Amino acid sequence: MRLAQLSERSGVSTATIKYYLREGLLAPGHQINATTAEYDESHLRRLRLVRAMIQIGRVPVATVREVLGHVDDDSLGRTIRLGAALWALPQVAEPDEEDDHIRAAHREVDDLLDTLGWPHAKALVTISPAYRSLVVAVAAFRRLGYDWGPELLASYARLMHQVAMLDLDFVETHPSEAEKAETAVLGVVLAEPILQALHRLAQEEEAARRYGFE
Amino acid sequence: MRLAQLSERSGVSTATIKYYLREGLLAPGHQINATTAEYDESHLRRLRLVRAMIQIGRVPVATVREVLGHVDDDSLGRTIRLGAALWALPQVAEPDEEDDHIRAAHREVDDLLDTLGWPHAKALVTISPAYRSLVVAVAAFRRLGYDWGPELLASYARLMHQVAMLDLDFVETHPSEAEKAETAVLGVVLAEPILQALHRLAQEEEAARRYGFE
Repeated sequence: MRLAQLSERSGVSTATIKYYLREGLLAPGHQINATTAEYDESHLRRLRLVRAMIQIGRVPVATVREVLGHVDDDSLGRTIRLGAALWALPQVAEPDEEDDHIRAAHREVDDLLDTLGWPHAKALVTISPAYRSLVVAVAAFRRLGYDWGPELLASYARLMHQVAMLDLDFVETHPSEAEKAETAVLGVVLAEPILQALHRLAQEEEAARRYGFE
Repeated sequence: MRLAQLSERSGVSTATIKYYLREGLLAPGHQINATTAEYDESHLRRLRLVRAMIQIGRVPVATVREVLGHVDDDSLGRTIRLGAALWALPQVAEPDEEDDHIRAAHREVDDLLDTLGWPHAKALVTISPAYRSLVVAVAAFRRLGYDWGPELLASYARLMHQVAMLDLDFVETHPSEAEKAETAVLGVVLAEPILQALHRLAQEEEAARRYGFE
């Protein structure tokens, strides 16, 4: 397809597509003469992903380029490829390792991983942004004097593990390794808002079931 | 306890506590003489909640006041009291009802609620911000040309319903109606980052289980 059709099918303006091409976020089309290039389905797919990251995920352009570098890196095994792409996305603030609540949260999360029997997650603690995010979130909870007990945290973790199995089942329906990595990135950018909205809607349903509308 | 001790136990400076008192986010202490007021555990609890909303949730002061107004409204039944407090928190952008993708997403979410058998959530669609957030998130997904089929969305929703049951079981462990509503607000501000981090950690664990670290 030509640039105009790529624009029409993606809903992205030709000016924005040209900007993405200049920034290297989209591979050049196949040049069929001096002024015309031809684009295919892989361009359309990539364009949608770039747009989702920039417009919905508010990911900076330099970060998008880094994420795509991992998505396209055929030298990586699947776990590392998915991980590298996701880890390049913007993360929460880093934990302050000098803080007492952060140190206590490290111990609590390490114990949680033992309780759950998640050895792989435990092997990744020194490099995983998800682990650091969890430490920061648990420390914030504790710093305010709240307690919800280790069993509740483990129950939430087991349910989120079931969610993660659905995620990966869906990722696996895509044929190529690059598409699998693209889908994992989309999962973070687009599916997390869906999960959060489903969670709040489920709270409303459950509250009304338990307490009525009195 | 005196102001100094309230500050020490909450980790909030006396200047900030005085600001919250002036703004009406914290009830006045019990005046024991012209210059000294006494505070109790309810002040400490409220102070932690206000701090969580402002410092972690980045909720504007006027919105905090509105949320607390619902938390403290003894005239409301429990469902409406929890709902009003949560609905007053900042929400995502409102759906543009003239947009075709938004209209299609309304139909898709309405069908989902039928599939799930969530009549109460369905009864609330005209007023629920969670419903509108879900419509916006689903429309964003579709606008980019993605499809994941109604069955996957329903599977995610059923898991988030189990999460919501844990949430409400925890809310119910608190004695008074005001504390229940406070805990529900904290759940949104503090527990959603924990759930999100658990989700990403579970993805890492599950990916490594399935694909190893090659």
